[in-house]
Amino acid sequence: MPRLTRSDCEALDAADPLAPFARRFAAGEPGTLYFDANSIGAMPVDVPDRIDRHLAEWRNLRRRGWSSSTWLDAPRRLGAKLAPLIGAQPDEVVVCDTTSVNLFKALTAALALNPGRHRIVSEAGTFPTDLYVVQGLQTLAPGLDLHLVPDGAAIEAALTQATAVLYLSQVDYRTARRLDISRLTAAAHAQGILTVWDLSHGAGAVPAALDAAGADFAVGCGYKYLCGGPGSPAYLFAARRHHQAARPALAGWMGHDDPFRFSPDYQPGKGSSRFLVGTPSVIANAIMEAALDIWAEIDPSLVFAKHAELGDLLVRLAREASGDAAIEVASPISSSERGGFVALRHQAGAAVVGALADAGVVASFRPPDSVRFGLSALYHRFVDIWEVMQRLSRILGDGAWRAEKYAKTKTI
Amino acid sequence: MPRLTRSDCEALDAADPLAPFARRFAAGEPGTLYFDANSIGAMPVDVPDRIDRHLAEWRNLRRRGWSSSTWLDAPRRLGAKLAPLIGAQPDEVVVCDTTSVNLFKALTAALALNPGRHRIVSEAGTFPTDLYVVQGLQTLAPGLDLHLVPDGAAIEAALTQATAVLYLSQVDYRTARRLDISRLTAAAHAQGILTVWDLSHGAGAVPAALDAAGADFAVGCGYKYLCGGPGSPAYLFAARRHHQAARPALAGWMGHDDPFRFSPDYQPGKGSSRFLVGTPSVIANAIMEAALDIWAEIDPSLVFAKHAELGDLLVRLAREASGDAAIEVASPISSSERGGFVALRHQAGAAVVGALADAGVVASFRPPDSVRFGLSALYHRFVDIWEVMQRLSRILGDGAWRAEKYAKTKTI
Repeated sequence: MPRLTRSDCEALDAADPLAPFARRFAAGEPGTLYFDANSIGAMPVDVPDRIDRHLAEWRNLRRRGWSSSTWLDAPRRLGAKLAPLIGAQPDEVVVCDTTSVNLFKALTAALALNPGRHRIVSEAGTFPTDLYVVQGLQTLAPGLDLHLVPDGAAIEAALTQATAVLYLSQVDYRTARRLDISRLTAAAHAQGILTVWDLSHGAGAVPAALDAAGADFAVGCGYKYLCGGPGSPAYLFAARRHHQAARPALAGWMGHDDPFRFSPDYQPGKGSSRFLVGTPSVIANAIMEAALDIWAEIDPSLVFAKHAELGDLLVRLAREASGDAAIEVASPISSSERGGFVALRHQAGAAVVGALADAGVVASFRPPDSVRFGLSALYHRFVDIWEVMQRLSRILGDGAWRAEKYAKTKTI
Repeated sequence: MPRLTRSDCEALDAADPLAPFARRFAAGEPGTLYFDANSIGAMPVDVPDRIDRHLAEWRNLRRRGWSSSTWLDAPRRLGAKLAPLIGAQPDEVVVCDTTSVNLFKALTAALALNPGRHRIVSEAGTFPTDLYVVQGLQTLAPGLDLHLVPDGAAIEAALTQATAVLYLSQVDYRTARRLDISRLTAAAHAQGILTVWDLSHGAGAVPAALDAAGADFAVGCGYKYLCGGPGSPAYLFAARRHHQAARPALAGWMGHDDPFRFSPDYQPGKGSSRFLVGTPSVIANAIMEAALDIWAEIDPSLVFAKHAELGDLLVRLAREASGDAAIEVASPISSSERGGFVALRHQAGAAVVGALADAGVVASFRPPDSVRFGLSALYHRFVDIWEVMQRLSRILGDGAWRAEKYAKTKTI
């Protein structure tokens, strides 16, 4: 196979049906290439307009905004716009709170739907906050057992009829290894186990197909590939078949069937609405909606196809370069097994990320050795991938990463 | 006592040390008087600048914002700025999540600190979301008993050694009746009971003096008197003496002692930091901080003094007017027993609020008959109170509220 050239990448861009969408996102520092979609996606250009409109409502409507504007319905409206990206129905998704808080809601709801079982199965290497949520829950439910499958071991072997809930990250935050939601959900259901998926490192990049897989609950982050802004509201998916019976352990007035009746008794709302708790964050939702309105214009399958191509290109260029450099591809080679980013392994990964930043490439590091490049089908060009790998090769070739100033690089 | 005149109000404004602060808040619709500080406070004029600065960080720093900017520390920094308003130390308050979610954290922490007791005491008339939070918690802890003191009955009589937690709203959301935090906390402690206070309808208007009262935990809303923007982050107070032992049942990576070590084991953070859960909402926090930076310039005792005077004025004018109108003062007459708003009682309160809106007065209604006027010492003038009561008198005098279009007024 001949080595790729920059012209090959330009040809891919010329044929890319999503290329026009790059203009819908704001540029950052001139010359800087942002490959941190796994951490914070780019800002939609109409975010300032959306904010201005909502600030005017704050100034002029004030409390009337709750009754006469779009504020209160935002969690449902945004959820409906997000749903197609994760293979869900509009009434199965709400946008609210943080991923961790939503995980607590989903886990407690799933546990309550599977009474008599007291074990949660997850992976030892799952994102730590996901483990902390269970550890917090154990203070309320001391009999709750968390069984962690060691890295690399088969998850199916841990699925027994003692297990109430299987909860997993779709995509490993260190390597981008992607789990098969459909296969694992089927294996769980065969043992009477409900599933909770954390889609944070997949949604907006790779398919989830939650309804097709029969998934029970899912949560995810709004500010990575989805471009909802730093710390944006997260989301929660609850399969329609659980809407009647699911009873949230974290309940509040926005989840009530009729919040402004001010009834003393909690009556859970319809659809996934019952997973709402407190007052929606109006400006944060306005920013998130600017992003979701872009997503709503695009066929998700085009996103997934381009994302896979971007990743394949990066993997191919990395493998071509790896002959003369101390890097290897940490992520799966096959795009069908990869999540939203591509991770390269380097023994001094943090220093490499530091040197990349000085060379105008924003990537990110995760211990022990993952250099992560978050890819966005909405705003990345194929030629950007080419350019990033050129800069990486230079840093590895001239040893720039060995400079003392990078020895203590701490990246998030 | 002679009837007050508009000139009397102008004289009060001329002598008001807080009068200059009104210019720090944006104007709304010309001619409209906003008396909904109990629902959404006014917008600080530098909110757009704060947002612009943070949007520039989003565009340019992207994921580096987490490590190089002020994003991650915002919950602690904002908490420290808010602390003096509620009589707390800087490390006792964090700004995060919603009031309901924070209430769940505070309640579960308090319950765990009082093992062997399984009763929560509250009031039947407390804000409904506060009851829903307990009802949600009961799905996890079926042995948990919620004892509700009927409206008007003595709370102390319900405090026994079977009670784990007394949780109360400082201010009744319908009448603005204010409870004595100090007296009730002492009564609770005498029975070995921990206290959780919801300060939503008091903070930024009336004193709380949490540390002086020996309060254990408190939560509150950021978007009412505090002016943090619609749906802004809420806050949580945990007394310093509980910082070592309190173990949150809702745990996440931002509450970890070292979140970016990515340890699989939850190690609670220092101070009230352990009550943080997910990623902070960066833009929402920037808006909230614009407000808190105004508060930081002001001696809280001046706020409380002016707020009491504003309320006293409204009460006096309402009583003067009530001879010829079907209104009465629903709130306590004494400012020391009132919270952030003044409620007037009218048999068709919702219609009156509708007619007020058309007369350029934004008030709010709560069933069955409360017409609420939320007062802000930061931006209300005494002459505004005069003007509002003039408009109210006109509506009551000419029967404008009887128009059919107001019969179905629904206000929030």
